[in-house]
Amino acid sequence: MKRIAVLTSGGDSPGMNPAIRAVVKKAIYHGLEVYGVYRGYEGLMDGDFRRFELKDVGNIIHRGGTILRSSRSERFKTEEGQKVAIDHLQKYNIDGLVVIGGDGSYRGANALHRKGVKTIGLPGTIDNDINGTDFTLGFSTAVNTVMEAVDKIRDTATSHERAFIIEVMGRDAGDIAAWAGLATGAESIFVPENITAKDKMIDRLNKGYERGKKHSIILVAEGIGTAEEFASYIKEKTNYDTRVSVLGHVQRGGSPVAFDRILGATLGGKAVELLMEGVSGKALGLEKNEISIYDYEYVFKEKPKHPIQVLCNLAIELSI
Amino acid sequence: MKRIAVLTSGGDSPGMNPAIRAVVKKAIYHGLEVYGVYRGYEGLMDGDFRRFELKDVGNIIHRGGTILRSSRSERFKTEEGQKVAIDHLQKYNIDGLVVIGGDGSYRGANALHRKGVKTIGLPGTIDNDINGTDFTLGFSTAVNTVMEAVDKIRDTATSHERAFIIEVMGRDAGDIAAWAGLATGAESIFVPENITAKDKMIDRLNKGYERGKKHSIILVAEGIGTAEEFASYIKEKTNYDTRVSVLGHVQRGGSPVAFDRILGATLGGKAVELLMEGVSGKALGLEKNEISIYDYEYVFKEKPKHPIQVLCNLAIELSI
Amino acid sequence: MKRIAVLTSGGDSPGMNPAIRAVVKKAIYHGLEVYGVYRGYEGLMDGDFRRFELKDVGNIIHRGGTILRSSRSERFKTEEGQKVAIDHLQKYNIDGLVVIGGDGSYRGANALHRKGVKTIGLPGTIDNDINGTDFTLGFSTAVNTVMEAVDKIRDTATSHERAFIIEVMGRDAGDIAAWAGLATGAESIFVPENITAKDKMIDRLNKGYERGKKHSIILVAEGIGTAEEFASYIKEKTNYDTRVSVLGHVQRGGSPVAFDRILGATLGGKAVELLMEGVSGKALGLEKNEISIYDYEYVFKEKPKHPIQVLCNLAIELSI
Amino acid sequence: MKRIAVLTSGGDSPGMNPAIRAVVKKAIYHGLEVYGVYRGYEGLMDGDFRRFELKDVGNIIHRGGTILRSSRSERFKTEEGQKVAIDHLQKYNIDGLVVIGGDGSYRGANALHRKGVKTIGLPGTIDNDINGTDFTLGFSTAVNTVMEAVDKIRDTATSHERAFIIEVMGRDAGDIAAWAGLATGAESIFVPENITAKDKMIDRLNKGYERGKKHSIILVAEGIGTAEEFASYIKEKTNYDTRVSVLGHVQRGGSPVAFDRILGATLGGKAVELLMEGVSGKALGLEKNEISIYDYEYVFKEKPKHPIQVLCNLAIELSI
Repeated sequence: MKRIAVLTSGGDSPGMNPAIRAVVKKAIYHGLEVYGVYRGYEGLMDGDFRRFELKDVGNIIHRGGTILRSSRSERFKTEEGQKVAIDHLQKYNIDGLVVIGGDGSYRGANALHRKGVKTIGLPGTIDNDINGTDFTLGFSTAVNTVMEAVDKIRDTATSHERAFIIEVMGRDAGDIAAWAGLATGAESIFVPENITAKDKMIDRLNKGYERGKKHSIILVAEGIGTAEEFASYIKEKTNYDTRVSVLGHVQRGGSPVAFDRILGATLGGKAVELLMEGVSGKALGLEKNEISIYDYEYVFKEKPKHPIQVLCNLAIELSI
Repeated sequence: MKRIAVLTSGGDSPGMNPAIRAVVKKAIYHGLEVYGVYRGYEGLMDGDFRRFELKDVGNIIHRGGTILRSSRSERFKTEEGQKVAIDHLQKYNIDGLVVIGGDGSYRGANALHRKGVKTIGLPGTIDNDINGTDFTLGFSTAVNTVMEAVDKIRDTATSHERAFIIEVMGRDAGDIAAWAGLATGAESIFVPENITAKDKMIDRLNKGYERGKKHSIILVAEGIGTAEEFASYIKEKTNYDTRVSVLGHVQRGGSPVAFDRILGATLGGKAVELLMEGVSGKALGLEKNEISIYDYEYVFKEKPKHPIQVLCNLAIELSI
Repeated sequence: MKRIAVLTSGGDSPGMNPAIRAVVKKAIYHGLEVYGVYRGYEGLMDGDFRRFELKDVGNIIHRGGTILRSSRSERFKTEEGQKVAIDHLQKYNIDGLVVIGGDGSYRGANALHRKGVKTIGLPGTIDNDINGTDFTLGFSTAVNTVMEAVDKIRDTATSHERAFIIEVMGRDAGDIAAWAGLATGAESIFVPENITAKDKMIDRLNKGYERGKKHSIILVAEGIGTAEEFASYIKEKTNYDTRVSVLGHVQRGGSPVAFDRILGATLGGKAVELLMEGVSGKALGLEKNEISIYDYEYVFKEKPKHPIQVLCNLAIELSI
Repeated sequence: MKRIAVLTSGGDSPGMNPAIRAVVKKAIYHGLEVYGVYRGYEGLMDGDFRRFELKDVGNIIHRGGTILRSSRSERFKTEEGQKVAIDHLQKYNIDGLVVIGGDGSYRGANALHRKGVKTIGLPGTIDNDINGTDFTLGFSTAVNTVMEAVDKIRDTATSHERAFIIEVMGRDAGDIAAWAGLATGAESIFVPENITAKDKMIDRLNKGYERGKKHSIILVAEGIGTAEEFASYIKEKTNYDTRVSVLGHVQRGGSPVAFDRILGATLGGKAVELLMEGVSGKALGLEKNEISIYDYEYVFKEKPKHPIQVLCNLAIELSI
C-alpha cells in the first residue's frame, strides 16, 4: 500500500472533515501518498483527483460540510460507471480507498471491493441509520443543532403559551427526533420506527394544560409525517394555539461537536491502518464504545437496533 | 410616582427580559414598587398582576422570550377593554406603566396615555420596524441567529454545489434579511422595501457559476414572497440544483446578544427615570447611538428610514 | 418507597440539572414524593430540605450548574455529622436518596448506605475520573467548552504565529485534555496519567516549524503542571513566541450538551427505578453504551481505565 | 488608482477578515487589482505580498483572526524601515494601502501617508480604544465572547455561593469590562478610566449577602489591576468564598458577530471608494451610526469619549 484516496458521498455531515483530515494526516504520517477525490463517486468517474498534502487539511477540523464536496450518483450504480472509476484509480496507482458516507455510499464501496479495489467505509451521515455502529459521523452534531433550535423555540413557546410542532430530519430513522426530544424535554416525539397513537399526544396535551403547563413541544421525524399534518390533527381535536417549524438544512451544518471530531479522528485513523494491513471490504463504526469492524454485507442485512423506543418512553415520563 | 407596572405585548423578542429586569431593578433601587403584568394587555384587562421583588428578575438577563409572557389583544382595542384595564391599574394604585412591544403595543400605550395613565413605550420586536429608533430590542439577536443558521446552511451548500433560498422573518421590513445577508455574504437579498428585479439574481447566479462559484445563498424576507416562489423562479430559468429553507420561529428565541441586553438595560432604566419625572406618552429608542425620546404620534407617522437598500447593494458588490 | 430526596455535592457540573429534573419527574410520575436537599451534605445536616413539585424543575434541563447548589463538607465525614443527617432524613420519612457528585460524594453516600439509608450515586463531575463509567455527567459539555475556547485561541495563534500553552482542568485525570486536544488538533497534550518527555514536544515544535507550521497548541492538564511551567521550558529551549492561557472556571459552566442531558435523564430515571425496587449502595454510569451498576466499593477500588494514552498518541500522529 | 494593497497590524481581532474580504471584493468589483500583505508592516518591509483573487477571500467572512496574519513592528518605526516598505510598494506599482489595526498601526499609516503613499486606516482592535469611532472592528465580538464566558461562570458561582473576580482585556480602556459587565449583570466593574473606591464594592457585597444574594460577579479590566489583587482585597475585608478567572486570549478569537461583519463590510467598502477618489490620510469609523472620516491626527489627539462611566453606574444600579 503506497497510495490511497478518500472521498465523501451522499448527504454531507459535520464530522466528514475531521475524518478526511485524519485519513490524510495518518497516511502521510506513515509515509503513504494520499489523493482527495472530489464530488464523491461522480468525481471518481470523472478523474477529479488531487494529491493532498498536510496543508490541504489544515484548519478544517472545526468546519462543517466536506471540503471534498459530495454527490449522489446514479451513474456509479452501473457496471460502466464502476469500470471507468476503477480505470482512474489504476491510472493513479491508487491501492486503497476510504469512502465516507451512508448506506448508499457503502454499496458503491462494496461494488469496488468485489472488483478488487481495497475499500474501507466510514459512517458519514447525520441520520444514524447505519447498522453496526451506535453513532454515525455527524449525528451528535445534528442532535445538538436541533437541541439548540428547540431551546430557542421553547423561549417563544413559553412566552405565548403555544404548542409547537417541530419537524426534524430522519426519513427512516427516528434517532435525531428521539435524542433531541429527550434532550429538550419534548412532550411528544413521533418517529418512523413505530406508530405511536396520536390520540395519546392529545391526552398528554390536555393533562398538561390541566396541570398548568401552557406550552408544549412536539418533535416529528419527517419519515412519520409532516409537522403540518400533526398541527392539523391537534387543531381538529383541541383549541390550542399551535405553530409549526421545519428545521430543514440547518441540521446538516455547523462546526462538529467534540464527539464527532474524535469519532472522525478515530475511524479515519483506523481506516488507514486497516488499508496498510491489506484489509478491504469493511465498514467501521463505534459499538459499545469500541471500534467496530463489519463486512459491508452485515451492515446491509438489517436496520440498526438503536433504543429509539426506550428514549421516547423516557422522554414522555420526564415531560409530565 | 410610587408604584409602576411593566408588561410585554405582541411577538416576543430576546431583549424583553433584560428590559423587564432593568425596569424592575431600577425602580426598586429608587424606592418604587413594581408590578409585573402577565400576558400583555390581556393580563392588564384580567388583573393578572403580581408584585415583583428583586429575586423575580434574578437570573433572567440571559434568557430569551419574556418571563411576563405576551399576547396580541383585539379586546384591548375597544373602549370597554381599555376601561377595564384602567380600573385594574387604579385599584392597584399604579401610576405608571412601561410597555415593551411593537407598533401595535404602542397604540395601546398611547390610548392609555390619552386617558390619563402615564405610559412609556420600549421597542420590543425582532423586526426593527419601529420609527424613531435605529435598533429595536431583539433585532440584533435575531440577526445573529439568522447569521448562524445561514453559516451552517452554507456548509452544506458548499458541499453540494447548490443554490439555497432561505426565508427569514420580516413582513414589512427587510432589516433582518439585509443585515443577515450582508453578514453572511449572501449573493442576493430580497426585501419588501423595494422590488428588485428577479432577473438580476439570475444574471448574478449565471455569472457566479461562470467564475466557478458553484453555490449561492439567496435571502428572502417573508414580506416579499416565499422561498418556494423564488426557488420555482430559479428552476424555471436555470438548471441549478436549488434547496429551500424557512428559518421560522427559531428567529424569535435565543439568549440575547450583548447589544440587546445593554439596550434593554439602558432603555428600561430610562423609562423608569422618565416615569419618576412624571413624563408620559413617549416611545424610547436608540438613534445615532443615543437614547431617543419621541411622542407615540411621531413613531406612527411613517416607516423607519433604515438604510436597507444601502446594505443590500453593498452585499451584492461584495458577493461577486 | 414513598418519599425520596436528591442532592448534588462537590464541584458542580453541567448535567446535574438534567439529572435532578429526571429524578424529580420520574419520581412524581410514579407517585412518589420528592425532596430537594440544598447545598449537598451540608444541607442534609442542616435540614435544608424542600418538597419539590413538577414546576420546581421546569425550565432547568438546559441550565448549567445545579439548582440545588453544592458544597464540599468536612463535617459530613464525621460520625456526628452523618448521624444528624440521618435524623433529618428520618424526620421527613425519606426512604431513599440520590446523590449526584464525584468520588468524595460517593463516599458520603456509601456511609449512609452502610447505616441503613438507601442511596444511589450518579457520577456528576466534569473530570471523568470515576471508575465504572465511560463518561461522567458534565464531562462532554466541559470538553466542548474547552474545544470552543481552543478553537478561538487558534484564530489568534494562527494570526500571530505563536505557540499557545493552554491549561485545562484535571487534577488526577487527563480526560478533558486528551479529548479536547484530539478534537482541536492540538500539537501536544500533557496529562497526569503519564510523564511524556517534554523534549519530544520541542522536537515536534521544531519539526513543525521546519515544515512551515508557524503556530501550535499545547494542552496541559493542571495535574501535570502549570501552563506557565511549560511555557518557560519552551522559552528556555527555543526562541518561539509563546503565550499562556488558563481556561479556569468557565469549564464548569454552560448549557449541557445533548449527551449530558440524555445521560442525566437516563441515569436519573434509573436511580428512581432502583430505589423503587429497594436497591441501595450502587453507583450508576454508562459503560459500553449501557447503564452500568456497581457497588460503591468497586468504584473506589481503582482509577478508571479510560484510553487517555490512545487518544494522546492519535492526536500526535494527526497533528503533523 | 489601479492597484491597492491591504494589511492587518497589531493585535488581531475578529472583524479583520470581513474587512479584508470587503476591501478585496469591492476593489475587484470596481476593476482594481489587490494585493494582500502578510504579517503587517513586517511583511510590507519584507515584500511579503501576494496578488489576491476573489477565491482568496472566499469562505473567510465568518472566521476570527486575520488570514493576512499580523505583527507588531519596531523596525517600521524607523526611517529606514519605512523607506524599504515604500520601495516595495513602488516596485509593485501599488497606489493605495488599507491598514487595519489599532492606534499604533495608524501611526505607521500616517507615516506612509506623509511620505506620499495613499493610506486609509480601519479600526481593527478588540479594545475599542480608538478615538473617532464608537466601535472598533472586533469589539462587539469580544464583548459577546466575554459575556458568554461570564454567563458560564455565573452557573458555577450560583451553584457554590461564591464571589467571582474575572479579569478581562483592556489596558487603557474599560469598554470590554463595562459592556460585558452591564450585559451579564455584574455586581461591580473596575475600569482604568476611573478609580472606583474598592470599599464600595465591599459595601455592595455585604448588602447583597444581607438581601440573600449569595454569589456575585466582579469584572476587572486588566489595566486597573489583576483579578488576584481584587480577590486578595476581598479576602482581607470579608470572609466570602472567592474565585479568580483570567479570561485571556480567548477574547481575541471566535467567529465575528453580525455587527463586526457588517462594520467590516461597510468600512472596507468605504476605504476602497475613498482610495479610488484619491483620498488619503484618513481613519474611518462609525460614529452616531454613520461612517466617520477623520485625519489620523484627530484620532491621535485624545482618548475616545465613550460612556464607560454611564454604563458602569447603570450596571451597579441594576445589580442590586
